[in-house]
Amino acid sequence: MENAKNFDVRNGRNLTMLVDFYEFTMNNGYFENNIGTKIAYFDMFFRSVPDGGGYCIMAGVQQVIEYLSNLKFTKDDIEYLRSKKQFSENFLNYLENFEFCCDVWAIPEGTPVFPNEPLLTVRGPAIQAQFIETMILLTINHQTLIATKASRICKAASGKPVMEFGSRRAQGYDGAVYGARAAVIGGCSSTACTIAEQMFGIPAVGTMAHSWIQLFPSEYESFQAWAKVYPDNCILLIDTYNVLKSGLPNAIKVFKEILIPNGYKPKGIRIDSGDITYLTKKCRKILDEAGLEDVDIVISNSLDEFIIRDVLSQGACIDSFGVGERLITAKSEPVFGGVYKLVAVEGEDKNIIPKIKISENEEKITNPGFKKIYRIFSKKEDKAVGDLIALSNENINIGEPIELFDPTFTWKKKRLKNYYAKELLVKIFDKGKLVYESPDVMDIRNKAQEEITKFWPEVLRFENPHHYYVDLSQNLWNLKQQLLHKYSATYEE
Amino acid sequence: MENAKNFDVRNGRNLTMLVDFYEFTMNNGYFENNIGTKIAYFDMFFRSVPDGGGYCIMAGVQQVIEYLSNLKFTKDDIEYLRSKKQFSENFLNYLENFEFCCDVWAIPEGTPVFPNEPLLTVRGPAIQAQFIETMILLTINHQTLIATKASRICKAASGKPVMEFGSRRAQGYDGAVYGARAAVIGGCSSTACTIAEQMFGIPAVGTMAHSWIQLFPSEYESFQAWAKVYPDNCILLIDTYNVLKSGLPNAIKVFKEILIPNGYKPKGIRIDSGDITYLTKKCRKILDEAGLEDVDIVISNSLDEFIIRDVLSQGACIDSFGVGERLITAKSEPVFGGVYKLVAVEGEDKNIIPKIKISENEEKITNPGFKKIYRIFSKKEDKAVGDLIALSNENINIGEPIELFDPTFTWKKKRLKNYYAKELLVKIFDKGKLVYESPDVMDIRNKAQEEITKFWPEVLRFENPHHYYVDLSQNLWNLKQQLLHKYSATYEE
Repeated sequence: MENAKNFDVRNGRNLTMLVDFYEFTMNNGYFENNIGTKIAYFDMFFRSVPDGGGYCIMAGVQQVIEYLSNLKFTKDDIEYLRSKKQFSENFLNYLENFEFCCDVWAIPEGTPVFPNEPLLTVRGPAIQAQFIETMILLTINHQTLIATKASRICKAASGKPVMEFGSRRAQGYDGAVYGARAAVIGGCSSTACTIAEQMFGIPAVGTMAHSWIQLFPSEYESFQAWAKVYPDNCILLIDTYNVLKSGLPNAIKVFKEILIPNGYKPKGIRIDSGDITYLTKKCRKILDEAGLEDVDIVISNSLDEFIIRDVLSQGACIDSFGVGERLITAKSEPVFGGVYKLVAVEGEDKNIIPKIKISENEEKITNPGFKKIYRIFSKKEDKAVGDLIALSNENINIGEPIELFDPTFTWKKKRLKNYYAKELLVKIFDKGKLVYESPDVMDIRNKAQEEITKFWPEVLRFENPHHYYVDLSQNLWNLKQQLLHKYSATYEE
Repeated sequence: MENAKNFDVRNGRNLTMLVDFYEFTMNNGYFENNIGTKIAYFDMFFRSVPDGGGYCIMAGVQQVIEYLSNLKFTKDDIEYLRSKKQFSENFLNYLENFEFCCDVWAIPEGTPVFPNEPLLTVRGPAIQAQFIETMILLTINHQTLIATKASRICKAASGKPVMEFGSRRAQGYDGAVYGARAAVIGGCSSTACTIAEQMFGIPAVGTMAHSWIQLFPSEYESFQAWAKVYPDNCILLIDTYNVLKSGLPNAIKVFKEILIPNGYKPKGIRIDSGDITYLTKKCRKILDEAGLEDVDIVISNSLDEFIIRDVLSQGACIDSFGVGERLITAKSEPVFGGVYKLVAVEGEDKNIIPKIKISENEEKITNPGFKKIYRIFSKKEDKAVGDLIALSNENINIGEPIELFDPTFTWKKKRLKNYYAKELLVKIFDKGKLVYESPDVMDIRNKAQEEITKFWPEVLRFENPHHYYVDLSQNLWNLKQQLLHKYSATYEE
């Protein structure tokens, strides 16, 4: 499918100035202090899974790529910055000739990810690695939030298709468009958002609103009219007046009078209000008795993972779900708290000097250094048993027996022999040059569906999931302890 | 200020295809049934105030204007639609030559608004009035949500400046940019989002992140360096290591050693973690004892209206607030449930035929007909006493005594003599032509601050507010009853 020319970042939407103003004040300061070109390493990571869940689904890498590929300050931007009267001409000159030259690694989209592991690592001149903080966080935080919510909702739907219906309640235009993209990465099968099909090839779907029915003299006539225009794809919205007493009888009449005699197969009914369990059971029974066993029942009324699980467990008869505001805003927890932290700098001889951010709150303490991540799978069950974060230049003998241990309760150990491992971080930019090609969104989705089967159901539970292990290598653990002891106990009470 | 050329809808960002797919299937159906050109009236309204509050702040009208001004289907759009094999060539031809010709009325941005009153009314050919549903809802829902949340937060801050700091946790790029705009309409004084200054003239502000401190050999040296680069505007972030034992002493040292001797006034300190009440009281005392009474204390740690109210009531010493994720996503209730409903059609002789959407749930029943809204103010106290919704062609003798009555409990009546009234809906498009010019965002903000003073504090409470009256005129009430009785009791049990 051709990409739409309008509203398409692939064709060069420039989001350079969508940045927290302090990135400029800091960068001008780095520049003036001659540390702007010092090589710095930043990690983007998160500290806890939304909704108390067990895992997240990585998303947004393609939009980070598009942003970084289009980084450029226009003459207007430079003029604007000059008008702030805070920045040196040398600095403005640097921006005017800005050329992105960082290395960037990321975990591919659709991968299940866990707290405290780097989702994305940037290595480059401090001035550049610092500048891109805002947009990396904004992009990955948003899409990972929605992909994760979608994954939960699709899991609740137990294999029945989930359609993303949220545009009208999204937080802004990109909230709708990239939200639809992320929802599909998380497992949705289609969207109501038309432009998402043009941009990403996600099937766009839709039938009618209540206003269709209201614009005709009667519900029956409105259904008749619809069936004549869309005999191949006739899904009727039956709750405008009364589902059981008006909508369903009228739909059945139209299916039997107009579609079936003319050789068409009626497709479905949609219900957008009322008690889902009660109404769908009743409708299924009436449809079946009318010989319309193949007519699908589509539901679309303020759904989320909890309502879907509940109504299915009560025996609701539903073939597919349209999920709107609670998915597109991740209503139950609408913030993904990813952060972007300095983890190392390079010395003059290119040696890596690890940095740590300490905190009273121990979960806010960062993992220092330039790192890599292995995902370890047991060969016997082909299930993921844990992630191992190691220093990038560390030699981990994959294949040899390894010992994993809990970074807090270090006596909790596990020795693994029969395993295989996969490195999670993939290089996407090399010295500013794009070296990665994102798969199509529907392919990311399908791969994600496969990857998630490699996790134990206990890890995937909605609430109180089993804690998935994200361990540190012995070297990384030692380094972190050493830095912690160095910075602590400096102050006397 | 010049607008940035990039990312600026004012210069023609085309969002035409950001639309729910069912608008196309319905419109093609209207077209095929020759009812596409029937004149229809749609109202956008909401049913309840988020967070159990008493009022909302209207926002997003300017972006609706930009969207409607740029409605246009490209050749690629038409090709894409053709590829769906659902639409007639006549319909596609209509879209290719689409010219917007609706009338649109809206309540100006920054106005306090209440449930069940039309925020926006569209009159035009069904095919057009239907099509723009998605973007009208998306735009007004998002910005009104954030403006309302901002208004609550600013109210809690009791006149101290609130800065919008949420870009990195926003839901998509527009979530950040238009979120910043809406936050300012709701009362924020500035933003960290740079592009929002370029686009809207909202002051962009920012100082440093923890990474600034970490990139220097010591906190003290990092503060020294900052003070040298920004002696005029020196706000230091003091919580990287330890607020009271390291950050504050280092800041005071730098203020006294570098700024004051050189004739500069130290501006402030910022705290981004820890217990706000305890730390700010301690810091204030230490600063005052050091003769630094003018140094401001800025706070920015997961704030919302409840935390701000609490810490201020505990005597926290704060001069301004940076509010991030809980504002930019309206975290406590991230969905604004505005809807867009058919309320009337025109007959062949141009008579208006009112339409109603009934529901088991009586709060979901719409107010039928083409309407206008008066806001009624008592002359004595110059306070708003209620809104009166009337039919558009109805003659309300403003100035003469009027009787307001509760639309549900009709015996609750109020007779007003000494009042003045203001019509709320303003025409923004006349037969597709823009006839309204939006004020600048900062002017909208200032006007909104003034308007809100015309409401009793009881209506503005965060929780359990006094219910503000939105009443129907006798004629509108009669019409609604008549339509309700006509549609109800049609079904036998």
